[in-house]
Amino acid sequence: MPKTLTFSQIQRSIGGECALDADYPITGLATLSSADSSHLSFLASSKYRDDAAKTRAAAVLVRAKDAACLPSGSLPWIVGDPYLAYATLSALWRFQSRDESQQAAIASSARLGEGVVLGPGVSIGPDALIGDRVRLGPGVHIGAGAVIAAGCELRAGVVIEHVCEIGPDVLIHANTVIGSDGFGFARNKKGEWIKIHQLGSVYVAADVEIGSHCSIDRGALDHTSLGRGAKLDNQIQIGHNVQIGDHCAIAGCVGIAGSTVLGHRVMVGGGAGILGHLKIADDVVIAAMSLISQSISEAGTYGGVFPQMRQREADRSAAVLKQLPSLRTRVMRLETDIEQYWERSK
Amino acid sequence: MPKTLTFSQIQRSIGGECALDADYPITGLATLSSADSSHLSFLASSKYRDDAAKTRAAAVLVRAKDAACLPSGSLPWIVGDPYLAYATLSALWRFQSRDESQQAAIASSARLGEGVVLGPGVSIGPDALIGDRVRLGPGVHIGAGAVIAAGCELRAGVVIEHVCEIGPDVLIHANTVIGSDGFGFARNKKGEWIKIHQLGSVYVAADVEIGSHCSIDRGALDHTSLGRGAKLDNQIQIGHNVQIGDHCAIAGCVGIAGSTVLGHRVMVGGGAGILGHLKIADDVVIAAMSLISQSISEAGTYGGVFPQMRQREADRSAAVLKQLPSLRTRVMRLETDIEQYWERSK
Amino acid sequence: MPKTLTFSQIQRSIGGECALDADYPITGLATLSSADSSHLSFLASSKYRDDAAKTRAAAVLVRAKDAACLPSGSLPWIVGDPYLAYATLSALWRFQSRDESQQAAIASSARLGEGVVLGPGVSIGPDALIGDRVRLGPGVHIGAGAVIAAGCELRAGVVIEHVCEIGPDVLIHANTVIGSDGFGFARNKKGEWIKIHQLGSVYVAADVEIGSHCSIDRGALDHTSLGRGAKLDNQIQIGHNVQIGDHCAIAGCVGIAGSTVLGHRVMVGGGAGILGHLKIADDVVIAAMSLISQSISEAGTYGGVFPQMRQREADRSAAVLKQLPSLRTRVMRLETDIEQYWERSK
Repeated sequence: MPKTLTFSQIQRSIGGECALDADYPITGLATLSSADSSHLSFLASSKYRDDAAKTRAAAVLVRAKDAACLPSGSLPWIVGDPYLAYATLSALWRFQSRDESQQAAIASSARLGEGVVLGPGVSIGPDALIGDRVRLGPGVHIGAGAVIAAGCELRAGVVIEHVCEIGPDVLIHANTVIGSDGFGFARNKKGEWIKIHQLGSVYVAADVEIGSHCSIDRGALDHTSLGRGAKLDNQIQIGHNVQIGDHCAIAGCVGIAGSTVLGHRVMVGGGAGILGHLKIADDVVIAAMSLISQSISEAGTYGGVFPQMRQREADRSAAVLKQLPSLRTRVMRLETDIEQYWERSK
Repeated sequence: MPKTLTFSQIQRSIGGECALDADYPITGLATLSSADSSHLSFLASSKYRDDAAKTRAAAVLVRAKDAACLPSGSLPWIVGDPYLAYATLSALWRFQSRDESQQAAIASSARLGEGVVLGPGVSIGPDALIGDRVRLGPGVHIGAGAVIAAGCELRAGVVIEHVCEIGPDVLIHANTVIGSDGFGFARNKKGEWIKIHQLGSVYVAADVEIGSHCSIDRGALDHTSLGRGAKLDNQIQIGHNVQIGDHCAIAGCVGIAGSTVLGHRVMVGGGAGILGHLKIADDVVIAAMSLISQSISEAGTYGGVFPQMRQREADRSAAVLKQLPSLRTRVMRLETDIEQYWERSK
Repeated sequence: MPKTLTFSQIQRSIGGECALDADYPITGLATLSSADSSHLSFLASSKYRDDAAKTRAAAVLVRAKDAACLPSGSLPWIVGDPYLAYATLSALWRFQSRDESQQAAIASSARLGEGVVLGPGVSIGPDALIGDRVRLGPGVHIGAGAVIAAGCELRAGVVIEHVCEIGPDVLIHANTVIGSDGFGFARNKKGEWIKIHQLGSVYVAADVEIGSHCSIDRGALDHTSLGRGAKLDNQIQIGHNVQIGDHCAIAGCVGIAGSTVLGHRVMVGGGAGILGHLKIADDVVIAAMSLISQSISEAGTYGGVFPQMRQREADRSAAVLKQLPSLRTRVMRLETDIEQYWERSK
């Protein structure tokens, strides 16, 4: 049941101009591409102008100069900084449990399947659903409205935040956290960071295994998702809105930044990093400790790491590495010189 | 007390051909080098053929083409994919506690020494042994059959999984996890990952200190071990079967992949990564954020990291770095040209 | 109330020569620059001789050869290894709670403000102060003497160690640990590591947000601090004595080594590492997965990462990278040769 607010209720928090009726009902915020006529959206960067031109949002937070790119069915809401306005509005839909005090370890509105085994110190929030034969280790916390499907095992200290959904037969190792807030902030003119409340969730498909100390953040507006049969080692950081395909294998200490999409059967070596908003094709293999900064459209092995050396040799190579552009220039000059001698000596 | 199964009981789960008697008793799986006549082993890669030739295992899962390399005392068990067969069999010996329900915070079969101090919310599994003067912080969980020797201090939220052993006077900081499953999976023909149950454990020697948020995985068949007096900072990932020597010092955010062996007094800088199956000699020093991809046989300092620059200069150097092989070719051609001119000008 | 010991009580543990009166009262250890006449300090490296010359410590642990650099008001305490002596003395002032047994989940001496919401399994140590409207999630542990200011929210499993102070309206995500011991050890002649008890604390200013699985270590003697409005993503390691300025934004998996100081509004990309004892100027931006090994005195973007390539091309570039110094030498030789031909051909 999404929370419905009228346009006038919403406008109070940020001002700005928009021709929506004062009592127009809005059920939430959405991206330009997923919004419908019950949603507000925002255009913060010109690289999303194509999405804006096709949006079905009731209204879109935009700068005055971008208002013309919206389709006729979608009204501009003119503001100075659309991203900051979105951050402010995100607080209106932040999650609030029906029963936040959570004095009871197991909320009375939580439902538990048959054969559930609860370790000591388990806490389960309001409206959570725990499937048959689920095993929750000592001190596990399941947030309000979260769903843990049948056959899952969550080991000691695992935290599943509110409304996240874990598919059947998933194994999660100790102290991993699923569904904490994605790292999203808008900067105001004073250089302060304004929180963008993370209104999405996390979906974990069946047969996934997740190691200890992983952080899988909830989506900003859409969801973060792990595909069927994916296997994650320890200490892995998955940013908001990331989508991991089926049967991916991700080694320890990997970080994947927000909104990146991994295809199926992608394998990521330990300590690798993948920047945000990238697409990685099916069956790609990424080498340990590489930084992936560009999308990869074709299967194969990718990477790049400074090679192991004796430290004093590494220092020498690193020093020359700093001079590489000038070294290349010198080689070009030598080639020109040689060419000139050749010409002259004819 | 290892769990004994007859060959016919075991064969039911994977099929394949082997001349072992139907009622031959098998107590478990072991590596080729550590197996005895009560064990099964497997030969999944030709690089272990030397180990196979000397194994004392009752039988070895092998491809038909590799069967001839086994010694006379060890029978071949012919299967299409020995590693996948091993994964399937590993489930037969997965750990099961005598009393899995663990409703009580402190199991009645756990034994506690004198002067033990338990914080609120501590849970201790069946058959665990807690030595004299051990201090367990709030919410610490000790798994079934684990041993915590005298004088240890485990701070809030630490998890020690089943049958791991922590030596005397060890200090472990908050939320660290010792003994979660190593990252081991075999891939089937559909590209799915089949779990290899991790049947080994973790041994931590005396006087070790381990920071917060470390993940020390249990061994696949043998054990993961930390040597006497080793000191680990925070956020460290230690893969299965890793052996860390005495008095090593490992800085924060380091990852060490499976089966790597560190000698004594090795020092590893923050954020460094060490690939799996390597040997690192005594007294080696590894520089921060380096990737160690090859074994190191001699003491000294090793590393290699792209140097710090202004970003636009780093981008230029990185662009030339991609062209380095062709730049080297151009230098070689210039050298040849110069040589020719020299010859000609004589 | 610092613990006061007489010089003779202290001297018993390490010996060495010093002219302080036997009953001179010492309240603790301090750095050379922050010590006053109630403190002991130490000079372990000649790079701190300038600080030593200005210290106001009652006495300073020094090698005999360095004693002359102390000012007249500060007595030398001659020892063979001042750093090791400091490590030994640090144990004398290690934190000990008034009521260490902590059998009660909420210590009777803890004080809670109005409107505090405690999840199940929360534990609060002796003398802790919990401000108005603070929300502590399930299983949160607050150490002895810690201060959590009004309006904070600490999600499930967060651990705040003893005497750390969290400012108003701070949000900390699940399982993060604040105030575990910094990584400080002195090496004795047998190559063993002697613990330096971490006597400082952590101060977190107002409006900070910290992700899941962060480790923020307590200071060795001074404090570790996070400035107002700073935002930290997940899996971040902050070493002892680090100071983070106001409104910094630090992405996931970053590690910052001990005693480094970040200015205001610094932005650090995911997976980056910053070595210890550096100063980073206001408004610096550090690229993802870069290693910062030198101080930065001017705003701008800094970094450097081996570029992403097809693996076989990366291997080729890495191979040439190892030969870069010789490649440079060959280019220099070519330039000399060309120059000679030019001279000769005139």
